[in-house]
Parts: sequence; structure tokens; C-alpha cells
Amino acid sequence: MYPPVLEKLIDYFKMLPSVGQKTAERYAMKMLEIPAEDVESFAAQLQLVRRKIRRCSVCGNLTEEDRCEICRDESRDRTMICVVQQPKDVIAMEKMGEYRGLYHVLNGAISPMKGILPEDLNIASLLDRIDENTREVIIATSSTVEGDTTALYITRLLKDHPHLTVSRLATGLPMGGNLDYADEITLSRAMAGRIKQ
Amino acid sequence: MYPPVLEKLIDYFKMLPSVGQKTAERYAMKMLEIPAEDVESFAAQLQLVRRKIRRCSVCGNLTEEDRCEICRDESRDRTMICVVQQPKDVIAMEKMGEYRGLYHVLNGAISPMKGILPEDLNIASLLDRIDENTREVIIATSSTVEGDTTALYITRLLKDHPHLTVSRLATGLPMGGNLDYADEITLSRAMAGRIKQ
Repeated sequence: MYPPVLEKLIDYFKMLPSVGQKTAERYAMKMLEIPAEDVESFAAQLQLVRRKIRRCSVCGNLTEEDRCEICRDESRDRTMICVVQQPKDVIAMEKMGEYRGLYHVLNGAISPMKGILPEDLNIASLLDRIDENTREVIIATSSTVEGDTTALYITRLLKDHPHLTVSRLATGLPMGGNLDYADEITLSRAMAGRIKQ
Repeated sequence: MYPPVLEKLIDYFKMLPSVGQKTAERYAMKMLEIPAEDVESFAAQLQLVRRKIRRCSVCGNLTEEDRCEICRDESRDRTMICVVQQPKDVIAMEKMGEYRGLYHVLNGAISPMKGILPEDLNIASLLDRIDENTREVIIATSSTVEGDTTALYITRLLKDHPHLTVSRLATGLPMGGNLDYADEITLSRAMAGRIKQ
């Protein structure tokens, strides 16, 4: 019912995650309201991103070069590798500002439900890059069934490296979290991991 | 923290209505996952829309030609004009399938709060197009304060055309609406507009 060119744009907006017909219509309408040059540069940026962004050949993080900024940074501690699921997890860790080691981005988590198997993840390259300099692998996958499964799987694979410490981020109450608002699993984990004062 | 090209794309996605940092990140990530040719055609479509889509010179609806599909359709009833706020309202009316007249798209509603005054709307061209053939103007603005204000304003302007019937869409309970879920204003409108059986 909209002019065909506009209908087609609405369909493209519907490719975005959790965007249905109404939201896609609002997005397409917005494109008719903002200055034409903004739409042009938005379109140009879309093309540029797909052409320029690739996976770091070492850690799998997003980068414009062959190796990402963190892998190229000689001042980082090369004895530690923090394993995360997504590029945005690297950003979360970097915002914290207390970790100076390297990363390894799995690009997902094992989920038989969603048909994601270990071979679909960036795990082989993790094993490849571990050498005698690597002292600790910190598994920072999400605290979900998929994240736990992935952590367990990687921990087992790394058993062959006796010189290596494998650790996992602590689970428990979030800061500022009230006890009565915590779910049972979080509470049970916090109980199991209680620390002697 | 993301590669600069990606950061810039995230900023562009943040131009979309109600899209914040997290959603924009998800959208940008999606662009890295889908086939490259889809991203290319999405970008091309964005440019095309802005170059091709314009306002119908008669009714203000969106079109790729000088006059929109409905204004060009000789089989439509040219004695009736239905006044709506947005192009998507035309689509809603057309889906209903019972109206065969023409439309007039105001492109908004009067809202002193948002600084939208009558002269910002497509009202002058409505007065211009009314001639001796026009028999009825149906005001189908939204049932909101802005929509009501706009309806009142247009009704007054059309007082000068004594041959013209000016009507407004009925307000009342929506179909399938339970009485106890209706808000006070809807109920009061339904009461005031009650129909003798």
C-alpha cells in the first residue's frame, strides 16, 4: 500500500532483531524526515562497515585491521587470555578497566537447543594460540545454561595444559542487589561460593 | 571501543526513534551477520527511498510520481475527501476497504505543546482543492487532544462552504472492548454518542 520503494525499505528494516511491521514503518518514515545527507551517509556507513569490519585473526574480536587493537597493543599482559562470548563482552570488560590481558571471542555459546555446537564456535583457534607463555585462561562466558556448558567444555579441553590456571568469573549477588529480589539460582550460587571473612 | 567504522554505524542507528545505545549495537551487529549483499541492497534502498519518495502534489500522501496512486485512480469517488494525519492512516483506511473516496494527508496535527501550528500542516492545500464537486469532507484525525483540536480547526475553516457536509469518525467503545477496561473519556464519548435502537 505504501509506494513500492518504501515498502521494500520497510522489509529491510524488518531484518533487524525484534523489529516488526509497525516499528519498521516508523523507522522508514524517520528516513523521510531527517536531512537527505544524513540518509546518504547512513547508507554509505552501512556499506563501509560490511566491507571494512572483519574478525581479528588472533582473538576473533571485531577489527578493521588483520589483528585487533588489543592484540596489537604491546603493553597488554600476554600471559592472560579472557574468553568471552561476544565482541560487546570485550567492551564491558574494558570499561571495568582492571584487566590488562588479552581476549578470545568465541562468537557465541554452545546451545544444542539452537543447534550451536562447539565446532561452530571460535574454540579451535583458542587452543592453537595457547603456548608456554600463557599462564591463565579466565572464562568469562555468561552466567546462563549455554554459558556454563561452554565454560565446562573449554575447561575440559584445557586440562591437557598442566601449567595453565583456568578460572571462571565469580557468580553471586550483584552489587546493590537486595536478597529478597535475587532469584533462587543466584542465591544458591552465592551461598556455595561464600567467602570466609 | 568498537572499531571506529562500527561506532559510527551505531551512532546512525541511534537516529531511529526510541533506539538507544544497546539496541543500536544489536542492529549494527546484525549487519555483520547477514549476507553482505543484503546489507548492500539495504543501503541502496535507503538512498533510493530518499531520492524517489515525495509528497503527492494534490493530497500530500507519499508517492513516487507527481500524484499518488489514489489521486490518479479515476474510479475513486471524487466527491469525498477523508482528512488524515499521516500516510499510515491512509493505509489503515484502505485496509478497511469500505471507503472509495479521496484522501488528504495533513502530515501531523496541531499541537502548541510541540510547537506545531496550523501553518505547519498541509491545510492550505485542502482548502485549495475543495470545489463545487466536493460534497463531503470526513475528518479522520486521531481521537487525541491534538487530533480533536485539528478537527475543530478544519471544521471552522470549512464553514464557508455551505454546500459541504463535514463529518468526523465516530468515537466510542472499540469492537470487542469490555466496558470495565474502557477509560473514562472513551466511555463518556460512547455515552454522549449513544444511538437509539
